[in-house]
Parts: sequence; structure tokens; C-alpha cells
Amino acid sequence: MDSTTCLAIAIAEGFQCHTLAFDYGQRHRIELALARKQSRMLRAHQHKVIRVDLRAVGGSALTAAQRVPKGPTGRAIPSTYVPARNAIFLSLGLAWAEVLGAEALFIGANQVDFSGYPDCRREFLRSFERMANLATRCSSEGRRIRLRAPLLDLGKAEIIRRGARLGVDYGYTHSCYDPVRDRACGRCPACRLRLKGFAEAGMTDPAPYVRTRRRDRGRP
Amino acid sequence: MDSTTCLAIAIAEGFQCHTLAFDYGQRHRIELALARKQSRMLRAHQHKVIRVDLRAVGGSALTAAQRVPKGPTGRAIPSTYVPARNAIFLSLGLAWAEVLGAEALFIGANQVDFSGYPDCRREFLRSFERMANLATRCSSEGRRIRLRAPLLDLGKAEIIRRGARLGVDYGYTHSCYDPVRDRACGRCPACRLRLKGFAEAGMTDPAPYVRTRRRDRGRP
Repeated sequence: MDSTTCLAIAIAEGFQCHTLAFDYGQRHRIELALARKQSRMLRAHQHKVIRVDLRAVGGSALTAAQRVPKGPTGRAIPSTYVPARNAIFLSLGLAWAEVLGAEALFIGANQVDFSGYPDCRREFLRSFERMANLATRCSSEGRRIRLRAPLLDLGKAEIIRRGARLGVDYGYTHSCYDPVRDRACGRCPACRLRLKGFAEAGMTDPAPYVRTRRRDRGRP
Repeated sequence: MDSTTCLAIAIAEGFQCHTLAFDYGQRHRIELALARKQSRMLRAHQHKVIRVDLRAVGGSALTAAQRVPKGPTGRAIPSTYVPARNAIFLSLGLAWAEVLGAEALFIGANQVDFSGYPDCRREFLRSFERMANLATRCSSEGRRIRLRAPLLDLGKAEIIRRGARLGVDYGYTHSCYDPVRDRACGRCPACRLRLKGFAEAGMTDPAPYVRTRRRDRGRP
């Protein structure tokens, strides 16, 4: 949901977008098929998938045999946190951006419905941008690459409204950490945040869910 | 050569070392077998290989069909530069360091025999360390992870002397970018730097080479 909205915003700003997805050993591999589909639907220039085996690193319920927690999110860093994931994804994005000679790197991170992930905060992103410009040939060529996170200060409801205005079809997005036969579970922290967002936006979530308690899917 | 010496230094300082190698689509895959061997020979605690497909990113002679340049290194960033490679490797190392609760992340980068790689400079490494501490749960737990590059200011000859004193067997290290049947080519920029280092250290390089002009292998 966030990545797709981020793409729609970048395209609306006039960027030629090269989209990147990561096959990292996640349980929710359905997001890879949907990422490719959204990239095509929103008319990105090109889509790429990079394989990086974060299962080998471990330490997260998203890539390990560990169970994905159900129920509301607390204040602590949850077990679905994947160690240094955004640093890894952004570094790989940076590599491709360097090959393309890209002006900017976009990420759908957001810190409002902050579920305790350190790598979704503004100070992390600022620091990454500084590092990125030292890590690459940009520095010796007098160019700069900008790191953009247009959703950073938006709540989920605002993200959904913004995306809907830009024509995003959320029926082909996936947020669930623990899908059952490619349908969202409706109970993990990502599903809860998403459903709350749709409810606040006064919209119905068009994505497929396993549990179909009508009340949970937002008020139409 | 650099990574192995770096490991020997970390072990000599008393660290329990967890070694990490990357299977990233490099031509010189022989380095993976040797990394595992060195890790065992130097008594690291554990060795891990992470697969990350940098061929998908492209942009480098080390991972693409492009030829590896022969002959001496110029001032410009060479075609063997892999875009953002150290940012990617360090981010993956950071992820594992976070899982392990490690105090420090070691890298064998060095900026003296600087062959134009932006991501081997002190300012890049400092910037990465700052980012790393914001990217991970360290920040919320009041811990810090240190990024150590003990070879940063050493020339190749000094690296070799230091390693030899610590018992490193350089016969089982590999630096060549373009090996032929697992033997170093003797002509690529990495081989040239290495051979010059051995010559300056007054030692013979014990590693296997394709071309065996005696003069090139250092003075015994």
C-alpha cells in the first residue's frame, strides 16, 4: 500500500520511475507479483526484482519460522522488524540508482503509524542520504542523489486518500505479514494498521482477506 | 588478502569473530571457498555466506559480461567498481551484527592504494557508522555499534607484513578480479597492487598465478 502510493506520487510529480522489489525470503511473497503488476498499471518505466537472502541473517518473524504476532502493536520494536532492512533495501536501490544515473531514490517509509521500526524515522533517512552521496561516484562527479519519502508524515488514512485520488487500485496491494493462500490474515499488525486506515478514510479495503468480518474491513 | 588480514587483526585484539562472505555474482567465486577456509584457519567462531544478486544491478565489470581491464590503474573510478558495494555489504553485515548483538563490524577497506573506489574512504565509513546506529534497534537500546577498518591507512606492503606477523597464510587468499581456473591472472588492477605489495614487503606471493614470470611475484 505504501510503496504503491509512493510510486503513484513520484509518477504524478513527473519522474520516470524504475521500480525495484526484493525477493528476500519474506513469507508474504505475493507482494512480489503485486509489485510487478502495480508497476505496470501505474506505467513505471521498468521493474526489477533483486534477490537477497535475508533468511540467512535471521532475527525476524517475517523471514524465520517464528510466528507472526497477532493483536495490536505495542511500543517496543516488534518481532516483525527485519534487522537493518531499510538500510539493505536502500543500499541496493542506491546501487541501481547509480547505474541509472537517477536523481532520486523514493521509499514508502512512514513514521506516523510508527510501529517501532527504527529505520522508518526521518533521522535515519537523512543519515542514509548523506552516506549514499559519499558511497557512490556521485561524490566525485559533483552530482547528488536525493532520498525522498513522500509518505513519511502521513497517517494511513491520508495515504489511502492520496493514493485513491491518484488512481491507485488498492485491490492489488498487499500489506499482510502472514497471508493464508495469498489472502490477508486481517489480524497481524500490518493488517490492523491498514484496516484502521481504510476505516478512517471512510473507504472499504478492496483487497482479499481470509477473515471477512464486515466491520473490520472499513465502513463503506 | 585485506579481509583475511582484517580478520587476523580482530582476532588478535580478542574479538570473537563471526565472518561473513557474499555470493553476489562475482566472477572470482574462488574467494568464497577461501574465505570459509581462512575463517576456519584463523579460528573465527562462525562463518556465513549471504547471497545477494548484484548481477541484477549491473554496472560493473566484476559482475557483468564486460571485460575486466588489464594494465595499471588510472585516477578515474575503474570499471571494476561495483556500485554501492560496500554500502550493501556493510548493511547486510549490520543486519547480522544486530542479530548477534555485536559490538563492532570490521571491514578490510583501505584508502592508501586507493584505486578510485568512493566507498573505501574514511568519510564514507564514518557516515555509514552514523547511519548504522540510527538504522537499528541499537539506537533505542542505548547501545552503539562501531565500524572498524583497521587497514584503512595501511599500504599493501604494510598489510602483508602485519598479516604475516599474525600468521596469515596468504597462499589461501585471492585478490584477482579475473581468475583463470581459480588461478590469479597477474595482470588485473587487483593483481598488480597485490604483487607490488609483496615486492615492497620483500616477500614472495604464495598464491597460485596463471602467469609465472618470476620477476612479477615479488623478490624472495
